[in-house]
Amino acid sequence: MPNTRLAQQIAFLVEADKLKNVLRRTPLMDASRLENSAEHSWHLALTAVVLAEYAPTRIDVRRVLEIVTVHDLVEIDAGDTFAYDVAANQTKTDRELVAADRIFGLLATDQATHLRELWNEFEEQQTPESRYAHAIDRLQPLLQNAQSGGGSWTTHGVTRGDVLRRMAPLQTELPEVWPFVLEVIERFFP
Amino acid sequence: MPNTRLAQQIAFLVEADKLKNVLRRTPLMDASRLENSAEHSWHLALTAVVLAEYAPTRIDVRRVLEIVTVHDLVEIDAGDTFAYDVAANQTKTDRELVAADRIFGLLATDQATHLRELWNEFEEQQTPESRYAHAIDRLQPLLQNAQSGGGSWTTHGVTRGDVLRRMAPLQTELPEVWPFVLEVIERFFP
Repeated sequence: MPNTRLAQQIAFLVEADKLKNVLRRTPLMDASRLENSAEHSWHLALTAVVLAEYAPTRIDVRRVLEIVTVHDLVEIDAGDTFAYDVAANQTKTDRELVAADRIFGLLATDQATHLRELWNEFEEQQTPESRYAHAIDRLQPLLQNAQSGGGSWTTHGVTRGDVLRRMAPLQTELPEVWPFVLEVIERFFP
Repeated sequence: MPNTRLAQQIAFLVEADKLKNVLRRTPLMDASRLENSAEHSWHLALTAVVLAEYAPTRIDVRRVLEIVTVHDLVEIDAGDTFAYDVAANQTKTDRELVAADRIFGLLATDQATHLRELWNEFEEQQTPESRYAHAIDRLQPLLQNAQSGGGSWTTHGVTRGDVLRRMAPLQTELPEVWPFVLEVIERFFP
């Protein structure tokens, strides 16, 4: 058996594998199946690298990558909460806090604290990096839905107003990308 | 239409979605299906964060995240080359160079160069960050195979000698993790 600390780290990495089985409502762009939260997290990291120049204040993109890597781990217990599900979003915070306690708690205290702080930062949106991470976390599903011909918008009867409200933060967080977002919304909800 | 630069960035992010359909030989830990290269890339990023303390020289883990995020994009064209397939590995470099030209070339020159340099750094293994990325890229499939009851080792008749050769760099790159690696190999190839 490895020493305790390493054993905890391996147990955590084994647990994390379950995120590959957490399905989101958004499909892959070829509409072949639903996307899972692990591959979504990777796509978000790539988006963070590619679109960093559009953040309104200077950001440390590598710190965004750290945030994005851990941002959905709580979904292993709490599940993916569909952005347009009002009822589920009322219980989301409580479910995710319990999940964070258990999942980050698999690690030794110093590492559990470090990863928990990254997740808290994402949730609290008080730093430029976390606001940017949140903005691309809204943009990426828009791309998935647009490319797959409507995706979760069509499947779940989401309205133009719903999408406009959901995307609103992009107007200030990614101002140069906002015209493209509006163009996509106009195309799907004329 | 968005401006040319943004259009290129979106086209690149759309193309990247295909990595979610590139299957590796390693299964998920619950053995329910094969892992894809997008979710593998995310798992590698998480591994990078959690095991950074074991790198033999001080590394910038956030730079590792940038490297890991782009390291498998070439597989969209070149496919995942199974680590234990000798013939496929002889053509791997050529196939991946052509893929890198096309895929990174979807972006404007400055960004194409930046991402290509990250990928080159991963391939060349001349920096502590890229050697660490390579080491965890060997360790992560070992965990997938061990947890799933043998995984690609069993399915493809991989031998103890093959695995020992494949894992050898871990002895110097993650020396404190090496006893655990040996223990896993001993368990599956007694």
